[in-house]
Amino acid sequence: MPHYVLNLYTEIYFFMKRRRDLATIKDIAEVLQISPSTVSKALNNATDISESLRQKVLDVAVEMGYHTKASRKLENRKLAILVQNMEYEEEGDFGFDIVLGFNQAAFRHSWKVDVIKVTPEMEETEKYDNFLLANSYSGAYLLGFTLDDPWFVQAAATTLPTIFLDNFIRENPKVGELCTDSNEGISLLLTHLLELGHTKIGFFTGPSNSNVFRIRRQAFLRYMTYSNHPVKDHWVIQGDIYRTSAANKLDAILNGEVTAIICSSDEAAIGVISECIRKGLRVPEDISVVGFDDIPAAANCTPPLTTVHQSRTQLGSGGFIALNSLLEGLPVSLTTLRPHLVIRSSTAPVRKED
Amino acid sequence: MPHYVLNLYTEIYFFMKRRRDLATIKDIAEVLQISPSTVSKALNNATDISESLRQKVLDVAVEMGYHTKASRKLENRKLAILVQNMEYEEEGDFGFDIVLGFNQAAFRHSWKVDVIKVTPEMEETEKYDNFLLANSYSGAYLLGFTLDDPWFVQAAATTLPTIFLDNFIRENPKVGELCTDSNEGISLLLTHLLELGHTKIGFFTGPSNSNVFRIRRQAFLRYMTYSNHPVKDHWVIQGDIYRTSAANKLDAILNGEVTAIICSSDEAAIGVISECIRKGLRVPEDISVVGFDDIPAAANCTPPLTTVHQSRTQLGSGGFIALNSLLEGLPVSLTTLRPHLVIRSSTAPVRKED
Repeated sequence: MPHYVLNLYTEIYFFMKRRRDLATIKDIAEVLQISPSTVSKALNNATDISESLRQKVLDVAVEMGYHTKASRKLENRKLAILVQNMEYEEEGDFGFDIVLGFNQAAFRHSWKVDVIKVTPEMEETEKYDNFLLANSYSGAYLLGFTLDDPWFVQAAATTLPTIFLDNFIRENPKVGELCTDSNEGISLLLTHLLELGHTKIGFFTGPSNSNVFRIRRQAFLRYMTYSNHPVKDHWVIQGDIYRTSAANKLDAILNGEVTAIICSSDEAAIGVISECIRKGLRVPEDISVVGFDDIPAAANCTPPLTTVHQSRTQLGSGGFIALNSLLEGLPVSLTTLRPHLVIRSSTAPVRKED
Repeated sequence: MPHYVLNLYTEIYFFMKRRRDLATIKDIAEVLQISPSTVSKALNNATDISESLRQKVLDVAVEMGYHTKASRKLENRKLAILVQNMEYEEEGDFGFDIVLGFNQAAFRHSWKVDVIKVTPEMEETEKYDNFLLANSYSGAYLLGFTLDDPWFVQAAATTLPTIFLDNFIRENPKVGELCTDSNEGISLLLTHLLELGHTKIGFFTGPSNSNVFRIRRQAFLRYMTYSNHPVKDHWVIQGDIYRTSAANKLDAILNGEVTAIICSSDEAAIGVISECIRKGLRVPEDISVVGFDDIPAAANCTPPLTTVHQSRTQLGSGGFIALNSLLEGLPVSLTTLRPHLVIRSSTAPVRKED
């Protein structure tokens, strides 16, 4: 276990031991040996105390589970969607419908929502919990964070209700994951290809710092083993998140070694199709290619992509329902949504001579 | 894959293709080539049509996704908790707090709830979906069903929102599972024992027709492998759900081969402790024993049991939230709740001479 993860769990235990009931301003003042009015000033962003004292008060307030009065009033109930490494501002962006679905569900439950594009600078200058508390957010839904982001590590140890899209955090009852079931999605793709007669199947995967790509690759290897179709090591190829990442990486398997390729995302699959065509192979006549996600481009590429559909609107509304459960004291650690298979034209029965 | 499971999936696909919109009485009448008034009589349990015709109408109504007018009215919104193989009527029964938690959450969302003890006779005489429809239930939470129960198989293929406690069903978007995270629970127990110096650890498990016992055993074997502590085959011993099931089954490991035993339930652990004492071993001085569930008896047995706590009230409220998600069209397939470790007196550091 890497060093920072151990630290993180130590911190969680520390928090959990300290927190029994909601802390008051008086509690915070006692711990810091300062007056309640100074604590109050710090929590209300008054200008007549130093920034370093303000940060110190916020640190202790968060650690003790303090919630601002503002955040406790119904009309001020406010949640944050924090976005990193994901486009969401225009229709068609992966995050657009997620934000929409979350907003719709939150509105029905009388929560206000702010959507915040998190910059590396923000992560450097303020701690995750302090950011939420200083802005009176009762909880947050985190989209697109990678294991390397400072706020990822801090949010994993948070004392404020937090839901991650596609990342599971161990042992912290204030944190949960919402995701589409990648295991079932890969199982659906594989069953479809096996039914078409494919048995020599490659896997093209996105970067390894993404939890969801790791899970999809593991599911592929596990189901291939279950169904008695051994996978050669060089049939699993790692790219990045861009469509171009397949370029020149498939030579070792496009010589007839595999008759189908499962890709861990539609973006990757669209790149794989381009590369197949560049190498003179027809999709799906010579080789079948499938993706995962069913992004808008999947229906419009050539040939239209067979893929696993995950509803982004439901990733939004599901994120709210999971977060709302945490806010109500129900420690949901994982919520998975059903994917379903969308069969288009990038898959066909295996060629008889193969 | 066993034959009936294949049939089940064929049926699901059939249902899903047929069901686009909610069916009307007229739709059902057309399919059966009978008059709408006959359909209406059947759906309203009128006495002037034959029982066989009534069953036929119900079958088609369920297949086509018909909901009775009664079940669509707000004041008549009704859910069922169906209980099999589980006590729930008295405080202290495993199911008592589950029912309570579900009722509390349902009440806040204006749902009425009936709790029904399912008998083998009921399962023989009426199909699961027909039972729900005939009694105007919009959905159900199923407690204690085993893989062998007829209603288990039928509910796995249902078209009506259904949540199982502790059973995962593949590919049916109308069905979800609610459970405490057994993987994290076993991990917590194992970490505790490893910290006490135990490395030779046995596993005593409940019956194999229970999904949750199967998952706990798999988690145990996986984590022992991860942490480089090989488990000999005869260290994993299968009992049943009763406290007496450990009797005379532990001789092969109580000769010093293992210094600790993880049990897949508290009931099993209490039986294991009795058996250890009968064999002249002191718990925890000679051998540590841990359970799973934190049933009321766990705190009151001798010695009080170190175990994993799962909140039964939260298994109730979480079951409602998952079911409510399905009712609102959000296809949650799995919702897991955080367990936590409760350290009592049945565990101690490993003896130095071991």
